[in-house]
Amino acid sequence: MTSFSRPLSPSPLKKRPKIMSVPAPLNPGQRVLMGPGPSDANPRVLRAMATPLIGHLDPDFIQIMDEIKDMLRTAFRTQNELTIPISAPGSAGMETCLVNLLEPGDRAIVCVNGVFGGRMADIVERCGATAIRVEAEWGQPIAPEKVADALAANSAKLVCIVHAETSTGVLQPLEEIANLAHEHEALIVVDTVTSFCGSALEVDAWGLDAVYTGTQKCLSAPPGISPVTFSERAVAVMDARKTKVQSWFLDLSMVRNYWTGAKRAYHHTAPVSSMYALHEALRIVLEEGLEPRWKRHQQNHVLLRHGLQEIGFKYLVSPEYRLPMLNAVHLPSGCEDAALRGALLDRYGIEVGGGLGQFAGKLWRIGLMGESCTPNHVHMLLSALRSLL
Amino acid sequence: MTSFSRPLSPSPLKKRPKIMSVPAPLNPGQRVLMGPGPSDANPRVLRAMATPLIGHLDPDFIQIMDEIKDMLRTAFRTQNELTIPISAPGSAGMETCLVNLLEPGDRAIVCVNGVFGGRMADIVERCGATAIRVEAEWGQPIAPEKVADALAANSAKLVCIVHAETSTGVLQPLEEIANLAHEHEALIVVDTVTSFCGSALEVDAWGLDAVYTGTQKCLSAPPGISPVTFSERAVAVMDARKTKVQSWFLDLSMVRNYWTGAKRAYHHTAPVSSMYALHEALRIVLEEGLEPRWKRHQQNHVLLRHGLQEIGFKYLVSPEYRLPMLNAVHLPSGCEDAALRGALLDRYGIEVGGGLGQFAGKLWRIGLMGESCTPNHVHMLLSALRSLL
Repeated sequence: MTSFSRPLSPSPLKKRPKIMSVPAPLNPGQRVLMGPGPSDANPRVLRAMATPLIGHLDPDFIQIMDEIKDMLRTAFRTQNELTIPISAPGSAGMETCLVNLLEPGDRAIVCVNGVFGGRMADIVERCGATAIRVEAEWGQPIAPEKVADALAANSAKLVCIVHAETSTGVLQPLEEIANLAHEHEALIVVDTVTSFCGSALEVDAWGLDAVYTGTQKCLSAPPGISPVTFSERAVAVMDARKTKVQSWFLDLSMVRNYWTGAKRAYHHTAPVSSMYALHEALRIVLEEGLEPRWKRHQQNHVLLRHGLQEIGFKYLVSPEYRLPMLNAVHLPSGCEDAALRGALLDRYGIEVGGGLGQFAGKLWRIGLMGESCTPNHVHMLLSALRSLL
Repeated sequence: MTSFSRPLSPSPLKKRPKIMSVPAPLNPGQRVLMGPGPSDANPRVLRAMATPLIGHLDPDFIQIMDEIKDMLRTAFRTQNELTIPISAPGSAGMETCLVNLLEPGDRAIVCVNGVFGGRMADIVERCGATAIRVEAEWGQPIAPEKVADALAANSAKLVCIVHAETSTGVLQPLEEIANLAHEHEALIVVDTVTSFCGSALEVDAWGLDAVYTGTQKCLSAPPGISPVTFSERAVAVMDARKTKVQSWFLDLSMVRNYWTGAKRAYHHTAPVSSMYALHEALRIVLEEGLEPRWKRHQQNHVLLRHGLQEIGFKYLVSPEYRLPMLNAVHLPSGCEDAALRGALLDRYGIEVGGGLGQFAGKLWRIGLMGESCTPNHVHMLLSALRSLL
């Protein structure tokens, strides 16, 4: 027992002194998050993140992973075995879908009607594949006929499309385009970052093949994780690859062994605390129920829309393609974007989003996502705006 | 004011009912984390994660980002402007360094004496570059002469090496190899995942060019983030690229605009809560001081080593190359790896790591990292082991 008689090293049991060169503790302003994400997190989710860590291979963590996979399947409306969270933000989920399905020389039809479709085309090209762009004006959905034409003219492996374009507020109907893709033996890859848990999304019923999302929108968990789901068709394409996936970190042939394999083989160290948050956020979604949650987003959107239109905001997108959780609106005439957004943030702590890409400085993106989608949020914002206009 | 007279939508203000198909709340076992990471987190770090979210472009978040960059520079002992946390775990930091510096057709000398050197070689090849392997037996450091020979025989762009091999417990001396690389106009890329904030690391004084680490080892923040730092030489190589970086998500030419640019342009949504945790963990490191922290790791390593040797454990690595925070040890004869690790976890909640790669089932990796590096941790483990042997 000699070890017990050795001198204790002093730290870290000793209270540490204040050092002047160390920044002050975190003290961010109180915010009401009504931009394009992150949205407000439920206190239960924040509390879950403060749970002490356990190992990423701990049997208790494996159980948490299994529960997360099950809850993700419910939220995606899918039976897909390969339904897992990628350990990085939504853009990494986008990259995961593309790098695992594409090989150099492949062709992908990419539907571009906003920033995120453009990002998909960029990644397709970084995979050494050809991106065949099918475009629509920003603020308009993609016309299925254009996709049909592109599929007829090209032997494409993928059709890539954004369900909820966060840069424009457009909700894209998917079923017809998914059917067209399958008729031409292509897979459909779908960005559901903003729609997931906020409006109807039916991965299996609509026949979607590789779908990614983020945690910080209508799920209301902190940003940093990207759930993905792959259909059997997509897994078969992945398994038939002739070349290695260009990203080691995002290579699902290895990642899936950790998340779904019998051995649960180590790949990378999973972000344990973020998984705690995801687990609790998914529990909250399931408690509310998916359909009531979709309905809540629509109801508060209607409330917000009436109020915004009353004070002179104009919607970019026509009613039938409007996202409930991402309201892209032109400001009342005479209002200056940056000054008004700054005043909202400074005086009321309310964050709304500015325009992105070709809409920078030209419109606002007002989010009503997850925990930020309540009548109280709508009333706070409308009252604050009335006081400023 | 018509909006105020509209009916409130019922949820989420209403308390939600218990639904039977929803998993129970998180309730992981209490653990003492003495494996190869994650290590125990300081309660201050856990509490920081529970801070309400703010936006990733909020002025208050920009200040937090700036403080994180400054503290990372202190911890890396560098003046490098490009010193930022990548929004994904350590393996993504590894990939960040390699995909930004390599182009197809390049050659990289990769030093392999364990799992993580092997992983670097794998990623080098996924970049379309050639990996020239310089090997040492697992448990031995890489001999500088072998690197010199490889540099003489090949026109290499990079020398890639692991400072602290988490799979073997070897501490690799770096200065001589960094000098050799520079004599041959190559950059040196270094894995410091396990050494960062736990043993001497001098990015500028040793002339290291691209260095990545993780948060979940001696920094004792939750896993999920990978700080990296690039020297001016490395930035120049990156800026002279002829091809796009193959990963959009890890492309520093864009990521750095968000972290260091005057405009702080949106790239991806930063993991806000993980940045809160990183900020607080770095504050704790700076309060303690880097050198006292390195010393603490060494002192507790000595305490553990005496105890382990007394009860029959044998170190894999010879004393001069032993990592203080990662103790790779052969079990006393007659002990069975899985059964003994299982008993430690079940009866005492203590996690130690098993062997990785060719050492699977053959040795243990006992971590003494950050908050898990205290005399109390050492005593707990030794007492538990004595009770089980």
